[in-house]
Amino acid sequence: MKAEIITIGDEILIGQIVDTNSAWIAEQFNIHGIEIFQITSVHDDKKHILEAIQNAAKKVDIVVLTGGLGPTKDDITKNTLCEYFGSKLVLHEPTLEHIKNRFVKRNIDINKLNRDQALVPDNCTVLYNHLGTAPGMWFEKDDTIFVSLPGVPFEMKYLIENEVLPRLEKTGKTKAIYHKTILTQGIPESMLAIRIEDFENNLPANVKLAYLPSPMSVRLRLSATGDDKNELEKLVEAEAGKLQQIIPEAIYGYGNETMAEAIGKMILPQRKTLAVAESCTGGLVSHLVTSVPGCSAWYKGSVTAYSNEVKEKILGVKTETLINFGAVSEETACEMATGVRKVLNADFAVATTGIAGPDGGTPEKPVGTVWIAVATDNTVKAKKFTFGDNRERNILRSGQTALQFLRQVIMEE
Amino acid sequence: MKAEIITIGDEILIGQIVDTNSAWIAEQFNIHGIEIFQITSVHDDKKHILEAIQNAAKKVDIVVLTGGLGPTKDDITKNTLCEYFGSKLVLHEPTLEHIKNRFVKRNIDINKLNRDQALVPDNCTVLYNHLGTAPGMWFEKDDTIFVSLPGVPFEMKYLIENEVLPRLEKTGKTKAIYHKTILTQGIPESMLAIRIEDFENNLPANVKLAYLPSPMSVRLRLSATGDDKNELEKLVEAEAGKLQQIIPEAIYGYGNETMAEAIGKMILPQRKTLAVAESCTGGLVSHLVTSVPGCSAWYKGSVTAYSNEVKEKILGVKTETLINFGAVSEETACEMATGVRKVLNADFAVATTGIAGPDGGTPEKPVGTVWIAVATDNTVKAKKFTFGDNRERNILRSGQTALQFLRQVIMEE
Repeated sequence: MKAEIITIGDEILIGQIVDTNSAWIAEQFNIHGIEIFQITSVHDDKKHILEAIQNAAKKVDIVVLTGGLGPTKDDITKNTLCEYFGSKLVLHEPTLEHIKNRFVKRNIDINKLNRDQALVPDNCTVLYNHLGTAPGMWFEKDDTIFVSLPGVPFEMKYLIENEVLPRLEKTGKTKAIYHKTILTQGIPESMLAIRIEDFENNLPANVKLAYLPSPMSVRLRLSATGDDKNELEKLVEAEAGKLQQIIPEAIYGYGNETMAEAIGKMILPQRKTLAVAESCTGGLVSHLVTSVPGCSAWYKGSVTAYSNEVKEKILGVKTETLINFGAVSEETACEMATGVRKVLNADFAVATTGIAGPDGGTPEKPVGTVWIAVATDNTVKAKKFTFGDNRERNILRSGQTALQFLRQVIMEE
Repeated sequence: MKAEIITIGDEILIGQIVDTNSAWIAEQFNIHGIEIFQITSVHDDKKHILEAIQNAAKKVDIVVLTGGLGPTKDDITKNTLCEYFGSKLVLHEPTLEHIKNRFVKRNIDINKLNRDQALVPDNCTVLYNHLGTAPGMWFEKDDTIFVSLPGVPFEMKYLIENEVLPRLEKTGKTKAIYHKTILTQGIPESMLAIRIEDFENNLPANVKLAYLPSPMSVRLRLSATGDDKNELEKLVEAEAGKLQQIIPEAIYGYGNETMAEAIGKMILPQRKTLAVAESCTGGLVSHLVTSVPGCSAWYKGSVTAYSNEVKEKILGVKTETLINFGAVSEETACEMATGVRKVLNADFAVATTGIAGPDGGTPEKPVGTVWIAVATDNTVKAKKFTFGDNRERNILRSGQTALQFLRQVIMEE
């Protein structure tokens, strides 16, 4: 099966937003054995949209349109679809109810623009958009499937996952495919490739290994294609089991698991708790931890000590430590970790202190210098890291590195 | 002048990379008054590339191709260009010298694949690629300009800035354009459209208004096109001034400014400081604040009180308050805000407490219930918000709403 993605909206064509939707859809379709033949971005313009649909319909089995469905878009996309299919806009009552309910909850009356969002071409199947007011639409014509979705990423993703892919699977034209992503950390990609070279060379012919590097970890994806999904699952799981034998210390999770989730899985069964003290990461580490559902069972909280006053007063960092070694030092990091562990009454604690930039660097401690410390019942360990000169990336890398270091220390215990 | 961008490469079509190149080129071209008519992503396939070039040439004045020029791409793009122009590949000696020099520096002998990168269609003007081995190429045919560039982002950017844009400006066909993005918050898109309907209807003919919705705010973009950039700037700034009169309470900034930056701009000149207490937002508010460079001048820090124990012990929330009203209540939110303000010795404080989900909801306080409080020298105010049932989005919306509410209270003072 082949598909074309048509994104509608001036925002992409003036470079105001990057088209992340298409990459996401392409990846999802690819996983389901559907090839993306082309991605086309066009203006909010009837003639242009119509031409793109006509061109795509000649070449592919599925045309996915995203965007152009907001309340102020003058229904260009929907009117264009009506013209293409020779259909007309009709009111879809369940969608109108859904829109009204969303506004009632927020104590707002709906206006004509909101009401018009419930108008859909009379030849479409409405795909219920649980997360927004613009409904998804599914059309079929001459063996080609057309799907029109809102451009808001989380609404689009919801509809692809819950409405579009299940319907495409029912056509029986998608291929059976099974993927498993193995999350590793601590071994650079080039070293990892050598460690698992034999494993890779001995993979069954229908199982492929792909490296998916990301800023702080290397993801390995095993993919098997064939006819029987259950067989493929068994095959891939068996190969993933072999990898677990070869690089046990590097694998921290699978699929979309985060480092914070992996840490939660280690702490919860021990009935222990975690606390965080942050300076340069400014709240990011705590945010990453609290993104894990159910973390209140093992997470106490955090202190962001952006001023020395807070480091001393709340975390109990000694004045002499700050004077003698500075706020960005092994000593301060260790006192922050032991301090927050004590004051929040937790078993494990991690602390960050560094110079995120753009200002505050010195020749001795340039921007990007970060100390991370972990304190437990038995020990306190600190490590220095040197990142780059971009504030945003320094904060992000420090936050992720803090969780990695915490995981390592917990593993060692 | 109109342009089409054609990106060549399977990576984009399988969703392995996001096409950031096109957004960057679109933005640069737009600033120079060149409209991007369409963006098309195609496979590394001769027939497909040729068709895309032929279609684009019918509609636009400039066709920009990126990608498909690497040493392992088998020269598909260059051979396709030869076929399109009826030209043939010839060795470009200065490019070969440049390639050899780059390899000599790294002590590597060049192989046939490297040498082939110096082959170019005999009808092109070579654009010298200082940063890589694949040369840029410039073609003209029947009043249409064709540019072929490597897909490596920094090489592509170098060539656009140093070779392509200067040549396009020399054609005298680029237009002057001026944009200003106005950031608003607190009024839904559909309501805003009605509030500024008269303003929009009375805009000068060469000034356009666009709505750019994002999760928690609506961005309005005014764009003017014409001949004289200075005139356009005056025109747009005057219209932006009118908007400021119509919706003063909604506008929090311009361009890429964040809400936290807007708050910093209000607090810093007053020589005041901010502290944050978080429960359901778990560190996000503090992370958003500390993403602002230089915030240490006005930010003290935060306490994430994920357990009641921390709310009581560090923030001084009364045990009776937690027992009588619960952790998610107006009373607790207010005590968290006044508590963190006092303990971190700050002038302003904002606090969040709510049920992010997926668990913890009750019929009375369902998942998505959030209390936000702001404390100042003079007052403490709290407000209840009801968000949805998705943990990730509840955290995000609570964090952004906390900053919005903080801004409102500071404005009122």
